[in-house]
Amino acid sequence: MVLLGSTGSIGVATLDVARTFGLGVEMLVAGRNIELLQRQVEEFRPQIVVVAREEDRSRIQAPTVLSGEEGILHALEMAQSSLVVNALVGFLGLRPTLKAIELGKRVALANKETLVVAGKFIDTSRITPIDSEHFALWYILQGRGDYTSLTITASGGALRDWPLERLAQASFEEALNHPNWSMGAKITIDSATMVNKLFELLEAYWLFGTDRIDALIEPSSLVHALVEFRDGSLLLHASRADMRLPIAYALLGRLHQRVVEPLDLTRVSLSFAPIDPRRYPIWQIKDELLRRPELGVVVNAANEVAIERFKQGELGFLEIAQCIIEAFDRFHHQRVDSLETLFHIDREVRSYVACC
Amino acid sequence: MVLLGSTGSIGVATLDVARTFGLGVEMLVAGRNIELLQRQVEEFRPQIVVVAREEDRSRIQAPTVLSGEEGILHALEMAQSSLVVNALVGFLGLRPTLKAIELGKRVALANKETLVVAGKFIDTSRITPIDSEHFALWYILQGRGDYTSLTITASGGALRDWPLERLAQASFEEALNHPNWSMGAKITIDSATMVNKLFELLEAYWLFGTDRIDALIEPSSLVHALVEFRDGSLLLHASRADMRLPIAYALLGRLHQRVVEPLDLTRVSLSFAPIDPRRYPIWQIKDELLRRPELGVVVNAANEVAIERFKQGELGFLEIAQCIIEAFDRFHHQRVDSLETLFHIDREVRSYVACC
Repeated sequence: MVLLGSTGSIGVATLDVARTFGLGVEMLVAGRNIELLQRQVEEFRPQIVVVAREEDRSRIQAPTVLSGEEGILHALEMAQSSLVVNALVGFLGLRPTLKAIELGKRVALANKETLVVAGKFIDTSRITPIDSEHFALWYILQGRGDYTSLTITASGGALRDWPLERLAQASFEEALNHPNWSMGAKITIDSATMVNKLFELLEAYWLFGTDRIDALIEPSSLVHALVEFRDGSLLLHASRADMRLPIAYALLGRLHQRVVEPLDLTRVSLSFAPIDPRRYPIWQIKDELLRRPELGVVVNAANEVAIERFKQGELGFLEIAQCIIEAFDRFHHQRVDSLETLFHIDREVRSYVACC
Repeated sequence: MVLLGSTGSIGVATLDVARTFGLGVEMLVAGRNIELLQRQVEEFRPQIVVVAREEDRSRIQAPTVLSGEEGILHALEMAQSSLVVNALVGFLGLRPTLKAIELGKRVALANKETLVVAGKFIDTSRITPIDSEHFALWYILQGRGDYTSLTITASGGALRDWPLERLAQASFEEALNHPNWSMGAKITIDSATMVNKLFELLEAYWLFGTDRIDALIEPSSLVHALVEFRDGSLLLHASRADMRLPIAYALLGRLHQRVVEPLDLTRVSLSFAPIDPRRYPIWQIKDELLRRPELGVVVNAANEVAIERFKQGELGFLEIAQCIIEAFDRFHHQRVDSLETLFHIDREVRSYVACC
């Protein structure tokens, strides 16, 4: 397989699954964590490696070593593997997904931004999502179409129990303190703002072709999705918060063996709470975004810039959502009718939010 | 259809479903609630009616009116319907099930005792259970075989929150005070002793062909079953505590329309507790009974007599389980190799427990 983003938490878990099930790795792509990448290259012996910076190329021992975004696209053309695991972070993940699909490959997609930004232009039949929530929906549905609504769950993020009046003062480090999952910085902040869940609703929109989707907070992160059927039945999927489960399915298809240890539900209590727009102001645009899902590109670009500005101390925590909503209103009437327009809007929104 | 036991809670709910979906009723069987039966006969105009007592025959207006157990068996032979809903209570339900299967009919089975007592002699491919728990298991599995365990839930019954030391003093009326379901007296007592759940495990044993089955207490009675799959996933089925859902499926097969109102899980908290053998002493024989499921006849007969003696004030609440366990030990080495032996053991156990 090809693994884009091998040193992040999904990349590491993917290699763990590859090790367990004896899967070959033809190509690895990583950013700046060269030491971890070196160890991965030593263990999995890929033919092709791509690093972010030209100056890191010489530190990697492999038959072919390239660098940068163009390096990734070029390497994808060289690769023989029919499966590409895309665990890149942010907008950077879009072009490699488009390229892989163009090359007839199957994409196991952990990069949310791909569908959030460009779902309209992507053949989702070539995509298996690596995401506990979409995996759980798929696991429950198994092709059943007689549902009335799909619900994914949210942990509520690092600040879910903070007093509302203190939220404006939350620091970058405080927003990184996630209660249940250990993940990269970007997605952990997205979890605290609930932007992550908004993105997952958009992904579900493109993957399952429905707008009958919503989210609830389930604080233990053990129930990942609920499906309400027309007859009045509800099915819930629960499992340990361990990405190896959706990863193993994305890599191998239907499995009949142990991937993660089963849950003991006698030790927990499960509760489900609606998402409060006072704590998660981004939720105000949820319904409108599901009506205009192509505007995901606006929300994503605004979010990436706003998080960076929050990290730099230029914006307060609640201003992340505020900036995104302003951008959403400002660019609300844009039509996204081609990938070119999409890249153009992405740039426009980034400049707008850089000084909002 | 043919409906055996039309005036009990399942019978009434079955007629409610028949009314909703416009199903014809060819035959009604009821016990002593003649007034309700008269109203049902007036509404559904069955061709054949069977009452428990000969003296009630004249009170029913229908083309054919019979009485007693022989009347039921004879009427089944007359009936054209291919579907028999068996909602009779207790051991009385067994012979009509056997007769209906012999006649090539399909049985929607709410009478637990049929499978508990004689599962070994019954072609379960002709049976659809009317029971929230088995319905929930069936709904989750949909033919999937890659599970590691099936779990059904119990409410815990009327005395679940009583101090342990007071249980011995519980009266018949107190044990009838079920927290979540409104059902007949027999099953409500069985719920308080946990015998009902033991019976449901035996039913699951015969229906799903596995002994990897257990039960947990879920106090709200909203989650009816959980299935643990080999990969580490868990699926849960939840719905309102309303028998019309399993009844509608048993009568009509797969449904794509609203049967009960969907659940709002944001108003509840779900928790799962192991069944404590100090509160439910019958649970001590659970594992052994699943190893020797044919001994269900012993447990059932002992239970029916013990409940009657509890009602009469001859036994205390905890002595119900004690009597059953004594009978279980006493008849433990019996082999049940024919229906004749089964009926013989049933009588033997009843005499034994009448003076235990």
